[in-house]
Amino acid sequence: MEPEVLRRRLAAAGQGHLLRFWAELGGAERRALCEELQSLDCEALGACFRRAMEGADAADRDKVDGRMEALPRAVLGSAIRDADQLPEWEREGLHQISQSKVAVLLLAGGQGTRLGVSYPKGMYDVGLPSHKTLFQIQAERILKLQQLAEKQHGTKCVIPWYIMTSGRTMESTKEFFLKHNYFGLKQKNVIFFQQGMLPAMGFDGKIFLEEKGKVSMAPDLADLAFQKATCRLGVIKHLYRNNGNGGLYRALGAHGIVEDMEQRGIWSIHMYCVDNILVKVADPRFIGFCIQKGAECGAKVVEKTNPMEPVGVVCRVDGMYQVVEYSEISLATAQKRSSDGRLLFNAGNIANHYLSVPFLRDVINIYEPQLKHHVAQKKIPYMDITSGQLVKPDKPNGIKMEKFVFDIFQFAKQFVVYEVLREDEFSPLKNADSQNGKDNPTTARHALMSLHHCWVLNAGGHFVDENGTRIPAIPRLKDANDLPIQCEISPLISYGGEGLEKYVENKEFHAPLIIDENGIYERVKNSV
Amino acid sequence: MEPEVLRRRLAAAGQGHLLRFWAELGGAERRALCEELQSLDCEALGACFRRAMEGADAADRDKVDGRMEALPRAVLGSAIRDADQLPEWEREGLHQISQSKVAVLLLAGGQGTRLGVSYPKGMYDVGLPSHKTLFQIQAERILKLQQLAEKQHGTKCVIPWYIMTSGRTMESTKEFFLKHNYFGLKQKNVIFFQQGMLPAMGFDGKIFLEEKGKVSMAPDLADLAFQKATCRLGVIKHLYRNNGNGGLYRALGAHGIVEDMEQRGIWSIHMYCVDNILVKVADPRFIGFCIQKGAECGAKVVEKTNPMEPVGVVCRVDGMYQVVEYSEISLATAQKRSSDGRLLFNAGNIANHYLSVPFLRDVINIYEPQLKHHVAQKKIPYMDITSGQLVKPDKPNGIKMEKFVFDIFQFAKQFVVYEVLREDEFSPLKNADSQNGKDNPTTARHALMSLHHCWVLNAGGHFVDENGTRIPAIPRLKDANDLPIQCEISPLISYGGEGLEKYVENKEFHAPLIIDENGIYERVKNSV
Repeated sequence: MEPEVLRRRLAAAGQGHLLRFWAELGGAERRALCEELQSLDCEALGACFRRAMEGADAADRDKVDGRMEALPRAVLGSAIRDADQLPEWEREGLHQISQSKVAVLLLAGGQGTRLGVSYPKGMYDVGLPSHKTLFQIQAERILKLQQLAEKQHGTKCVIPWYIMTSGRTMESTKEFFLKHNYFGLKQKNVIFFQQGMLPAMGFDGKIFLEEKGKVSMAPDLADLAFQKATCRLGVIKHLYRNNGNGGLYRALGAHGIVEDMEQRGIWSIHMYCVDNILVKVADPRFIGFCIQKGAECGAKVVEKTNPMEPVGVVCRVDGMYQVVEYSEISLATAQKRSSDGRLLFNAGNIANHYLSVPFLRDVINIYEPQLKHHVAQKKIPYMDITSGQLVKPDKPNGIKMEKFVFDIFQFAKQFVVYEVLREDEFSPLKNADSQNGKDNPTTARHALMSLHHCWVLNAGGHFVDENGTRIPAIPRLKDANDLPIQCEISPLISYGGEGLEKYVENKEFHAPLIIDENGIYERVKNSV
Repeated sequence: MEPEVLRRRLAAAGQGHLLRFWAELGGAERRALCEELQSLDCEALGACFRRAMEGADAADRDKVDGRMEALPRAVLGSAIRDADQLPEWEREGLHQISQSKVAVLLLAGGQGTRLGVSYPKGMYDVGLPSHKTLFQIQAERILKLQQLAEKQHGTKCVIPWYIMTSGRTMESTKEFFLKHNYFGLKQKNVIFFQQGMLPAMGFDGKIFLEEKGKVSMAPDLADLAFQKATCRLGVIKHLYRNNGNGGLYRALGAHGIVEDMEQRGIWSIHMYCVDNILVKVADPRFIGFCIQKGAECGAKVVEKTNPMEPVGVVCRVDGMYQVVEYSEISLATAQKRSSDGRLLFNAGNIANHYLSVPFLRDVINIYEPQLKHHVAQKKIPYMDITSGQLVKPDKPNGIKMEKFVFDIFQFAKQFVVYEVLREDEFSPLKNADSQNGKDNPTTARHALMSLHHCWVLNAGGHFVDENGTRIPAIPRLKDANDLPIQCEISPLISYGGEGLEKYVENKEFHAPLIIDENGIYERVKNSV
C-alpha cells in the first residue's frame, strides 16, 4: 500500500495522527510502521470503540449478578470431599499420560512488570534454596510425571509442553530454555507460539503510539487467575484485516498447534498460567477426573471463603458455565451462603483448565468467532502527538481489549469443576515484595516451603531445633523475620509428596532441608 | 524478716545469687528487693522447676493429640449456619443488657512490646481516619450497646467494664482513661484490677534478676488468642507464700471483682483480649445464645481453614472441653477432615469467652486450685551475676509459668461454642508493620475499614471514583499501595452495621468516608 493511500485511510478513520512523526522516521522504521498499520482494520476498531463508549457496563454488571446460579453438585469433584476417589482418578490420569495422550498448555505471555522485572515471569527466581525459576520447577514436574507414568505402566511416554508467549517475551523465553537445555526435556517436545495483539486506544478513540514509529499493542488475551476489573461490552469481531490472531484460540489455530496435538495423539490438555508456583502441571487426578466424567472442558478451583476476596467464581449464568469476575458481583451476591454455611459462589477460578483436543478444535473452528472481547480501562503510556514526549498517565487513560480463556466454558457439552486445597495448589506470583503485600515472591516461596514441610512430616520425618528438640508440626510465624521451616523437595524427587518415606521416615532434620536428585542436604548442626 | 534470715533461706533454695548486688543497693532498693523476695516461695518454685526439667513435654504432647475429639453438634451455635436464630439470640442478649445483667471483662495486661511500643496495647492507634485507640473503640461500642438496649426496652442500663492490667500497665492505663474522661463512660463503671506475676527462671533453675535490685517477673496469665508454643507440665501450686494472685481467676478473687459483680446484679460476663480491633464487646447475640443454652461458659470461635494455621482449637480431650494449642497437635491431626470437607478441629480460639457469674465464683473458690500452670520457654533478658551487665539472649534461656484463661472450660456443667465469621469479628494486633507480616496495624486497620465498607454497601450506599463511576463492591487490592475503600463508622453510630440506612441509602460517596456523631464526612471531589 502506498503511504498516501494509507494516510487517507487512517485519516478517514480518525487515526491520521498515527503518521504524525512520519517525517522523523528512517526507512526501516517507516516500513515497519506501514506494515503494522496496514494490518489494522481501523473501521472495525472504531466501531468497537463507539460500542465501548455507549457504556452499558453498569447496567450489564447488575444483570449478570442477578442471573448467577451456583454450580450443580453433579459437575463437582472435590479432592477434599471425594478423597476416596482420588486413587482411581490418579490411576486414570497416569494411564492417559503413559499413553502420551496428555499435553500441557502454558500461558506465559506476561512480563513481570508488576513484579518489577522486564523479563518473562517464568524466568523469575522467588528465592528458594535451589534458586529454581518457575519455568524450571514446572519443567521438572513434567519430567517427574513422565517417569511416574512410565514406571507404573512400563511404556515410554511424552507430555508435550506448549508455551504461549507474547511478541515481547518470545525471544527471551526461547533463549532461556535453550540456555538451560530445556531443563532436561526434549527440545522437540517444548513448542513455543505467540499470542495475538490488539492496539490500545484512548477514551477519545485514538489509537496510541508507544514510540514515534510504533503502535501501542497489548496482548488480546488475559488469563485472569485473579481478575482485573473490566467491563463487558459485547462481541467485537474482525478487528484485523490481515492478522490471524484473535486470542489464544485463534493463535492456536494460526500456529497449527491443534494439528500438532492431533498428530501426536493428544486427547487431554491441561492449560494453566505461569505464575502459580504450586501448579500441578498435567495433574493426573484432575485429568483422570475429567476423563472419567467424559468432560470436554473442566476448571480446577479453590474455595473462596471471604466474600470480599477479589477472585472470579465459576458458576452458571443463564444456564451457561462461565467465570464471573469479582468486579461484576454485588456484595449481596458475594455474601450469599448455602445451608452448609459455605459461600454460594465459592468456586474460585485459579486459571487451571482442562480441554479435550476435539473440543479445542471445535472452539477454534466454530466457537471462537462467537467469543466476546472484554474491554478494560488501563493506564497506557503513550507518545504525546503534540510534544513528541512519552507520557505515563497516573490514572486510566484508555482501553485494551482482551478475550478471556474461560469464555469457552459455555460451549462445552460436558463441563466439570474440580475443587482442590489452596495451600496444596495455588500461590500466584503477581506483585513485588512490599509491606503487607500478597501474591509476591515471599508468599510464593513460603507457600512452597510450607507445603514441602508438610510432605516431610506426612512421610514420617521430623524437624528439630538447635537443641535437638522436635519443632511442633505447626510452627509459629510471629512476624516477617520468622521464616516457615525451610524445606524444598525437588520435583524430580516427588511430584506431589509421594515416595518420600525412603528419604525421611523416622529421621530428624535441621532446616533448611533440601532433597534433590543429588541427595539430602540439611544444615550442619551449629554451623551458624 | 532480717536480711540474714532471707539470705540463708535463699541460699538453701539455691537462689542466693538474688542478693549478689546487695552491697551496691541503696536503702529503698534494699527494702523493695527484700519485700519482693520475701513474698516468693522459693522451695515451691524449685519443685516446679524440677518438674519442668523432667521434660515429659514431647510424650504429653503426643498423648493430647491422640485424645482429641471434635465438638459435638449439640454445643455448637453458628452465626453463619444458624442465621435464622440470630434475631432471637440478639433479642435475648439485649434484654439481658437492658437489665444491667451483662459485664465486660477485658484482659489488657500486655504491653505493646512486639508492636514496638512501651505503653499498653489498648492505647495503640492503628491509623484509622479518626485515630481512635483500641480502648476508645471498645468503650464506644459499650456506650452504643447501652443505648440500643435502653432504646429497645425503655430502661436505663449499665454494662460495667472490668479491666485487668499488669503491674507494668496499671498506672498508664488509668491515666489514659482519666485523661479521656473514660470515653463517655461513667468512671464508677470502669473497674481496673491487676493480674498476678511469677518470677522467670533460667534452665538451671536460678531466678533471674532484671535489675540489680529487682526480680524478673512475668504475668502469670496468657490470653493466647493465637498461642505461644508451650509445654504442658502438670499442676504447680502455691508458689507464693504471701501473694494472693495466681492467674486471672485468683486476681478476680483477690480484688473482690466477683463480689462487685454480684452487688451489681451481673449474671453474664463477656471476657476478651484488648488486641482484637473487631471485637464485639458484650455481643448480644453471643450472650443471648449462651443464656438460651443455659451455659455456664462459652467460647466464640472462627473457622480454622488451613491445617497449618497457628491457632488453638476448642475441642474435647478425655471428654473435657479445652483449647488445644497448635503446638500440641501433629500434622496428621491438624489435617483431619469431616465428611463435609471442613477440618475436623476447626473451632479456632479467638480468646472471646462467656462466663456466668455463679460459675466464675465456683472457679475462684473451687476450681482454681486445680488449674495447671503451663511452662513456656522464652528469651528472658537478665542481669548477669558475674559481670553485672544486662544480657539480652538471642535464643530461649529460661522459662515463664502461665495459666491459660480457657483452662476453666473443663469445669463448666454446660459449655457451648459459638462460631462467627473471621472477617466480621477477628483481627488481632500483635506485630509491628513489616514486610509480609500479619496481625499488624495495617491488617487491623484494613479489616475494620473493609467491614465498614461492607456495612455501607449492605445499607444501600455506594462508592464512586474520581470520575463518578461506581466502584465494584469487591475492590482490587493489587499491592500494598492500594488501600481498601477507606471507610470508618463510629461505634456511636452503629454497633454491628445496624441503622445505617438513614445515612447512606441510595447515596454515592467518595472515600474516605467517615460517619460519626458529628455527621458524615467524605472527600470533596477533586480536593486532592
